[in-house]
Amino acid sequence: MSKSVRIIGIDPGLRRCGWGILDAVDNRLTFVAAGTLTPPVEGPLASRLAALAEGLAGVLDAHGPHEAAVEETFVNAGARSALILGQARGVVLVTPALRGLPVSEYAANLVKKSVVGTGHADKAQVGLMVRTLLPTALVKGADAADALAIAICHAHHRVSALRMRSLA
Amino acid sequence: MSKSVRIIGIDPGLRRCGWGILDAVDNRLTFVAAGTLTPPVEGPLASRLAALAEGLAGVLDAHGPHEAAVEETFVNAGARSALILGQARGVVLVTPALRGLPVSEYAANLVKKSVVGTGHADKAQVGLMVRTLLPTALVKGADAADALAIAICHAHHRVSALRMRSLA
Repeated sequence: MSKSVRIIGIDPGLRRCGWGILDAVDNRLTFVAAGTLTPPVEGPLASRLAALAEGLAGVLDAHGPHEAAVEETFVNAGARSALILGQARGVVLVTPALRGLPVSEYAANLVKKSVVGTGHADKAQVGLMVRTLLPTALVKGADAADALAIAICHAHHRVSALRMRSLA
Repeated sequence: MSKSVRIIGIDPGLRRCGWGILDAVDNRLTFVAAGTLTPPVEGPLASRLAALAEGLAGVLDAHGPHEAAVEETFVNAGARSALILGQARGVVLVTPALRGLPVSEYAANLVKKSVVGTGHADKAQVGLMVRTLLPTALVKGADAADALAIAICHAHHRVSALRMRSLA
C-alpha cells in the first residue's frame, strides 16, 4: 500500500485566495478541508500581504500538508494587474517553501484537463467535477473549488513533477 | 535630541535585490551597511523566492532596522515581466512586514528627487549623490546604491508617511 500524501492547492489572490487540501493514496483522493483567505482590502500593501502570509501559515499549521501546488498564472491583463497578482503570488509561493514544502506549479489548462478532461472547461464545470471527485468536500465558493482542482492535478502529476524537480 | 531610527531601503528583484541600511537622527544620516542579494537563478520559482526571503531575513536579523522602505514599481515592461517582478516584490514587502516593521513605498521620481534634487536623474547620478550624502558608505553595485537612495527618501519623508499610515 502506498503512503498517504497530504496536498494543498492554492489559488493566489490579494483579495481572495482559495485553498484546498486533500489526502492522496495513489489515485484515491480524500477531501480534508478548503476555504478562502480574505486579507483586508484597506491599509498598506505590505500589511495586506502579511495578513495573506499569516492566514496561509495558519492553514499550513492546522492541516500539515506535505506538498503544495499553485496554478501557473496566465497573464492576459495589463502590466499593472500582473504586478498586483504577482505580489500575492510571491507570498503564496514563498510561505510553504519557507517551511520546506516542495511547491509545484501547473498550467491552468493542465489543471482543467486533470479535473474535467479538457483544457477548456469553465469555472462551473471545474466546480462540479471537484464536487464529484471529492464527494465529501464542503466547498464554499469558486476560489476554494479552483484550489482543490489544483490539488487534484498535483495528485495526478506529482510523481513526475517531483522527479523533474530532483533533476533540475 | 531626536531618537535614532534605523532604516532599510530595498530595491526588489528576483536575480538581484539591493538593500541599504542607514541610521537617521533628524536629517543627519549615517551609513550602516549595504549589499545585494543574489538568489539562485535555477531551480523551482518557490525555492528561489524562499532564498530571497531567507537572505533578506538574515539582513534584518544582522542589522535590526526599525522601518523599511521599498520603491513603488513603475511597470513599463510587458505583463510577463511585471508578474515576475511582482513575485519578488511580494516577498520583499512581506518579509519585514511579518516582523512588525512598517513598510513604506515611494514613487521612483520621489526617490530621485530626494537624493539628486530632480525626479529625472539617471542611475549614475543617484549613485554619485548617495556616495556624497553617505561618505562612509561602502556601496558596491547600482542595486545597493538604489536601495540606499530609497532609505534616504524614507528618512526625509518618514514622519508624514507614518502619519498617513496611522490615518489609513
